[in-house]
Amino acid sequence: MTTPNLFTRVEESLQKQTLMTTLGVRLARVALGQVELELPSAPHILQQHGFVHAGAITAVADSACGYACLTHMDPDDAVLSVEFKINLLAPAVGERFCAQARTLRVGRTIGVATAQVHAMNPGAEPVLIAVMQATMMRVPPRNGQRG
Amino acid sequence: MTTPNLFTRVEESLQKQTLMTTLGVRLARVALGQVELELPSAPHILQQHGFVHAGAITAVADSACGYACLTHMDPDDAVLSVEFKINLLAPAVGERFCAQARTLRVGRTIGVATAQVHAMNPGAEPVLIAVMQATMMRVPPRNGQRG
Amino acid sequence: MTTPNLFTRVEESLQKQTLMTTLGVRLARVALGQVELELPSAPHILQQHGFVHAGAITAVADSACGYACLTHMDPDDAVLSVEFKINLLAPAVGERFCAQARTLRVGRTIGVATAQVHAMNPGAEPVLIAVMQATMMRVPPRNGQRG
Amino acid sequence: MTTPNLFTRVEESLQKQTLMTTLGVRLARVALGQVELELPSAPHILQQHGFVHAGAITAVADSACGYACLTHMDPDDAVLSVEFKINLLAPAVGERFCAQARTLRVGRTIGVATAQVHAMNPGAEPVLIAVMQATMMRVPPRNGQRG
Repeated sequence: MTTPNLFTRVEESLQKQTLMTTLGVRLARVALGQVELELPSAPHILQQHGFVHAGAITAVADSACGYACLTHMDPDDAVLSVEFKINLLAPAVGERFCAQARTLRVGRTIGVATAQVHAMNPGAEPVLIAVMQATMMRVPPRNGQRG
Repeated sequence: MTTPNLFTRVEESLQKQTLMTTLGVRLARVALGQVELELPSAPHILQQHGFVHAGAITAVADSACGYACLTHMDPDDAVLSVEFKINLLAPAVGERFCAQARTLRVGRTIGVATAQVHAMNPGAEPVLIAVMQATMMRVPPRNGQRG
Repeated sequence: MTTPNLFTRVEESLQKQTLMTTLGVRLARVALGQVELELPSAPHILQQHGFVHAGAITAVADSACGYACLTHMDPDDAVLSVEFKINLLAPAVGERFCAQARTLRVGRTIGVATAQVHAMNPGAEPVLIAVMQATMMRVPPRNGQRG
Repeated sequence: MTTPNLFTRVEESLQKQTLMTTLGVRLARVALGQVELELPSAPHILQQHGFVHAGAITAVADSACGYACLTHMDPDDAVLSVEFKINLLAPAVGERFCAQARTLRVGRTIGVATAQVHAMNPGAEPVLIAVMQATMMRVPPRNGQRG
């Protein structure tokens, strides 16, 4: 299920992130506390053995975690990554990669989310390739600069 | 101080990483257990408020940590990111960003490195914007596919 | 569901850990890839405001993650914590704390597990107070000393 | 160098932490942004192979990071662990363990610190056995309950 207003809010923010455009990231799904982003494999985002680079996977997982927290915040709030940790479980081999984030707790100041990234291939089961645990911070409008 | 053979080894690997080329990363310095990478600010790697994206900063810091461990390994060994954690201390505002990694311990199987990323601006002191702690794994040649 | 042989294997190891005895940790449940440990609240494991100390919660979550990985290994293998990361979501207030770990992937060398810790109180819903993401390493018998 | 007022402030808080007393932790040194705690090896804090338990090492490193941040805060502020990550580099074998924490940045809300833990043995060089990167949160007095 996707929540239309939340989807629009996240989509508008995502389109302002030029790195996401550079990587080729697409917004797939938004619900309260849940965001799913997709990254198609492409020749310009690889590491030295032809797999998709962990840095690209990480950027997508971080964005999904941030936006998952944002869905629990007021429309004028912005969200900022305080820190995150990612485990890379398997090489990023696939047609595309799906980062699914969900919030574990969003408090007054701090939000915590987790993300799983699966490699998707036609005719094959999704393969879990990475897991992230992330800490986000709510930035009220008077501070103003992130979202 | 830069060690020429190690520099060449890292440079050759870096040039095979298309994401690093896409981001605009340059190798600045290599010594035993130490690698420094530079990322110039550019319009295609930003987040929604015009700062350089945390995902780009993270990709560079991860690569620096991996290569720092690689300098302690045999010429045929490859290195693989098991996991990393990064704290984002300040917005990535700067002309360029310098990621300096150094190893804390490189064992038979596991290597651990830490990286600091500074924002560099002409006429100003470097500003520490991120710190990473990363776990790498040595991949001997028979397993073959990463480096 | 608990698997008797696995339960015995974990129980025997747990009883050799004097810190677990000092903290008062009990083994609640073991299945393939899943371990649950319990920590009763007690006056000797608190922090300065009377909550159970994050260090005690962390020790229990780490042990649960390690044992969850151990259930996927050979009887003679031992397991060693490479690293872990924990987010503390709420104060550790409760009659007892339940750490439930499950494996995400256990490979030839590296295992990755995640744990959730809930505060348990009579007549109340469990409250999620902490989440851990941990990296473990298999130690084959010839290296011998951890489990 | 130790700063007397800061030392007293940290010492008073430490003595209220019953887990620290249970483990046997001592305050060794306090300066602005720096705290050093010591943990003597003891039979009641071991893991199954007779080394000091990673959970004990982690509890001490976390406390050192929290107190390092506290030295940068107002006397009425308290500090709370948001999250931390620790890499265990070598078995905790030693007469005592020394956790040295220093702050990387302490902002209005969030503080980030890093800690190194060394094993100390008479007549031998200190051995680095663990490194932590931790995120702390300032709790102003009106919220009141941690420090």
